[in-house]
Amino acid sequence: MAYFLHCVPSLLLYATRAAVAPASPASGAPASAGPADPALIEDLVAANRILADQGVLDGYGHVSVRHPKDPQRYFLSRSLAPELVTAADIMEYDLDSNPVDQRGRAMYLERFIHGEIYKARPEVNAVVHSHSPAVVPFGVSNVPLRPLYHMSGFLGEGVPLFEIRDAGGMTDLLVRNPQLGRALAKSLADKPVALMRGHGNVVVGSGIPLAVYRAVYTEVNARLQATAIGLGGSVTYLEPEEGKLAAVNIAATIGRPWELWKKKALRK
Amino acid sequence: MAYFLHCVPSLLLYATRAAVAPASPASGAPASAGPADPALIEDLVAANRILADQGVLDGYGHVSVRHPKDPQRYFLSRSLAPELVTAADIMEYDLDSNPVDQRGRAMYLERFIHGEIYKARPEVNAVVHSHSPAVVPFGVSNVPLRPLYHMSGFLGEGVPLFEIRDAGGMTDLLVRNPQLGRALAKSLADKPVALMRGHGNVVVGSGIPLAVYRAVYTEVNARLQATAIGLGGSVTYLEPEEGKLAAVNIAATIGRPWELWKKKALRK
Amino acid sequence: MAYFLHCVPSLLLYATRAAVAPASPASGAPASAGPADPALIEDLVAANRILADQGVLDGYGHVSVRHPKDPQRYFLSRSLAPELVTAADIMEYDLDSNPVDQRGRAMYLERFIHGEIYKARPEVNAVVHSHSPAVVPFGVSNVPLRPLYHMSGFLGEGVPLFEIRDAGGMTDLLVRNPQLGRALAKSLADKPVALMRGHGNVVVGSGIPLAVYRAVYTEVNARLQATAIGLGGSVTYLEPEEGKLAAVNIAATIGRPWELWKKKALRK
Amino acid sequence: MAYFLHCVPSLLLYATRAAVAPASPASGAPASAGPADPALIEDLVAANRILADQGVLDGYGHVSVRHPKDPQRYFLSRSLAPELVTAADIMEYDLDSNPVDQRGRAMYLERFIHGEIYKARPEVNAVVHSHSPAVVPFGVSNVPLRPLYHMSGFLGEGVPLFEIRDAGGMTDLLVRNPQLGRALAKSLADKPVALMRGHGNVVVGSGIPLAVYRAVYTEVNARLQATAIGLGGSVTYLEPEEGKLAAVNIAATIGRPWELWKKKALRK
Repeated sequence: MAYFLHCVPSLLLYATRAAVAPASPASGAPASAGPADPALIEDLVAANRILADQGVLDGYGHVSVRHPKDPQRYFLSRSLAPELVTAADIMEYDLDSNPVDQRGRAMYLERFIHGEIYKARPEVNAVVHSHSPAVVPFGVSNVPLRPLYHMSGFLGEGVPLFEIRDAGGMTDLLVRNPQLGRALAKSLADKPVALMRGHGNVVVGSGIPLAVYRAVYTEVNARLQATAIGLGGSVTYLEPEEGKLAAVNIAATIGRPWELWKKKALRK
Repeated sequence: MAYFLHCVPSLLLYATRAAVAPASPASGAPASAGPADPALIEDLVAANRILADQGVLDGYGHVSVRHPKDPQRYFLSRSLAPELVTAADIMEYDLDSNPVDQRGRAMYLERFIHGEIYKARPEVNAVVHSHSPAVVPFGVSNVPLRPLYHMSGFLGEGVPLFEIRDAGGMTDLLVRNPQLGRALAKSLADKPVALMRGHGNVVVGSGIPLAVYRAVYTEVNARLQATAIGLGGSVTYLEPEEGKLAAVNIAATIGRPWELWKKKALRK
Repeated sequence: MAYFLHCVPSLLLYATRAAVAPASPASGAPASAGPADPALIEDLVAANRILADQGVLDGYGHVSVRHPKDPQRYFLSRSLAPELVTAADIMEYDLDSNPVDQRGRAMYLERFIHGEIYKARPEVNAVVHSHSPAVVPFGVSNVPLRPLYHMSGFLGEGVPLFEIRDAGGMTDLLVRNPQLGRALAKSLADKPVALMRGHGNVVVGSGIPLAVYRAVYTEVNARLQATAIGLGGSVTYLEPEEGKLAAVNIAATIGRPWELWKKKALRK
Repeated sequence: MAYFLHCVPSLLLYATRAAVAPASPASGAPASAGPADPALIEDLVAANRILADQGVLDGYGHVSVRHPKDPQRYFLSRSLAPELVTAADIMEYDLDSNPVDQRGRAMYLERFIHGEIYKARPEVNAVVHSHSPAVVPFGVSNVPLRPLYHMSGFLGEGVPLFEIRDAGGMTDLLVRNPQLGRALAKSLADKPVALMRGHGNVVVGSGIPLAVYRAVYTEVNARLQATAIGLGGSVTYLEPEEGKLAAVNIAATIGRPWELWKKKALRK
């Protein structure tokens, strides 16, 4: 009995840490799932630049991609403004958002947005978190964000609102630990986009081009919807079936905007 | 009688295909009407770049021109983002929107917008389809788009709304076959611009410079009109006669903006 | 009697032309008042570029300056998009807007805006006509354009509206002859800015830097005023005395923005 | 008695100057507190460029920093458009806003904004005065500027309005002397931002990166808030505790946007 007494503090510490902070495994950093395909890392770097170029990301926000060889790993830049991200900045994480090989690099405080969504959504392979400016107002309004044209048909499934007060009371609005990440993933449910009240939004997709497309057109739809509302008359939104059919078509033609955006963003 | 029985399947096939899909003539691709004047192709390429530069087109949308030597042919780029279009991308089509020499190149799904309008409007020689952002809100609003200054006098004839549900029920909003193209052309009637609900708009003209001018100033008018409405007071629109006179004047001075836009767009 | 019959057609023709078109003096072009100071022409070219750069002018609009040596002459570019204007494009006119040395160059249809204002306003030495986009909505609204901050104090004198229907009935909205130019000058009266309903605006000043400054800050004020109104509460405009004092101060510090704008515009 | 009569005019002159103009000490210019660390001057130059680049400053406005070695001195450019400011333009002032070594250089009329705030706020080491465009409308509206997302949590303390009529009656709106500067500092009180009715705003911080961050995100919040209000529904602002927590977090992560902005602004 006495033998174990010395363990109590560390057990309590581990329990406490597990409850309130990201758990660094007592055994060390998680193992790498192997190097990523350079083409995938290039797409991830391009995604950062595209989203900055398209006005979705500014000095803040981030985009990740799940490791193709291991669903328990994902790639995300070190803490850096998106438009400065290069291949050398990409880090590998497990789904608890522990770094595989940190090497002293600063990590995004909100990496838990990515890890927890990858846990909850096996079909999702790319996640974008942004403060895209036309969308933030919808996150603090009781006017729902809805698709008004075919480019944003994917919004037709509904756009949930993550209210962080429900999960964490009064906070700095940041998803800075796994519990808040799990609460966000729960609000997101099976949808492609969730608003984060007083903060921004998160967008997911089966791959980088689709997640980037959705992030861009969520922003565009928000801008157009504000204008349509401002005209003062009625607004005709897409019917659910129109939204579904439009989303299917877009997913099939994702190459066209992706090629253009990648070309423009990597040129700078 | 028996002799013809073997024709029945192919007749049925042709009838079916004609009803639901773009007809590839059973006899092969349509014949070319001959090479286009390089100056015309240069203008078509410039139009793509200008419309992207002026914020009318983004990764989507397209512009075509009727073949000067044969009203049954038109030129349109292969499926590509407008700002990437070069002379080598331009393809020739018949008015059923069949390609003359496809060479495996991907075609715009909505080329039927162009072909069907060229059929319905003998005086039209250029067509622009876009999702120009200030106009989309008018396409989902019951507030009519109307000209409020001389630059957009051509809107004074009226701006019809194409509601695709009337022609195709619940769709992905795309004009992806001749029937929908015909329905759009019918809504457009004899007007220079039609709104496409939940999608974008189509603009026509007797030549590329006029169609491009109209596309740009439809967008500008939409932006100005939203602002004027937002001031909260009355809005004075052009009288029909003012619109007509203004449109005549603009058509006569179309060289000035065209030269400037072409210079700026081809410089990039 | 019979002798004069052959003159009747040409007399009728001249009478008709005098009534409806700018009179080319039967005696020939007006005499030049001498070459302009190259520094003045450089400022006029810079003004064109600055106003395009600042979003006041696009492919349309123009700016002129009175001849320093002769108040009966002014300088204005040939008909060309403002951002393409160079020193070689500048032409000299009399106040009836007849060119001194046309050399087949196309003239702005609306040069009468400049000539007639120079006649009516001896203290004015520079005139800007534009379709600056935030101002056009005020020209079609019953909400008056008023200064809400010190930079646009000069609007505090009042901003008259020129309604062309009063002078010319149903027109194409263009000030295309001296009569309409006189009507515009009459509406402008002694103010620095007049709105032109369904068209744009005209701005005047004692020199190019002041006219350019006023054109830019009329546009900025219009933008800010639309935003202030959109907040839905009360808007506090400048008191008349504040407007006067602010305008005096700005006129005294006009060098600072002018230097910056000239530098940026001529760099391109 | 007679002896002193000759002093009367100069005494009257001095008294008059003291009442209406910035006092140049009868004894000469203030002494320098020594050269500034070149890295600090580089940050001040960068701040000017960043704020112009981010749309907060245009041809007007200015940013200063307190002298690290002497709280009675501060650095501010000579009167110049912010984007043209270089290290050689930086001047040193005492807190009465007298220049240490003027060398005939023109001074910002409103330098008293800086000097008087440095007197009133010992913990403030950087001050930004701007006419940032989205904020001006809030300065003339009775709709209060409030934080709606975590990036502008610092606005949660409240944003006072400086009404210059209370201090100076009818003026040209400029803070052109110490009395008006003191009145502004009094309105600002202990807050990070104050609106200046009919003029612009002032933003303070414990250092240049924080003051610049706050200036940028005050502008962004103003833009987002106008959009949120325009949606026509309710708007959920940050709770006071959320604002405080968010502000603490941002102050800790100020390096990330600062590095990006500095890089982009100094590249031009």
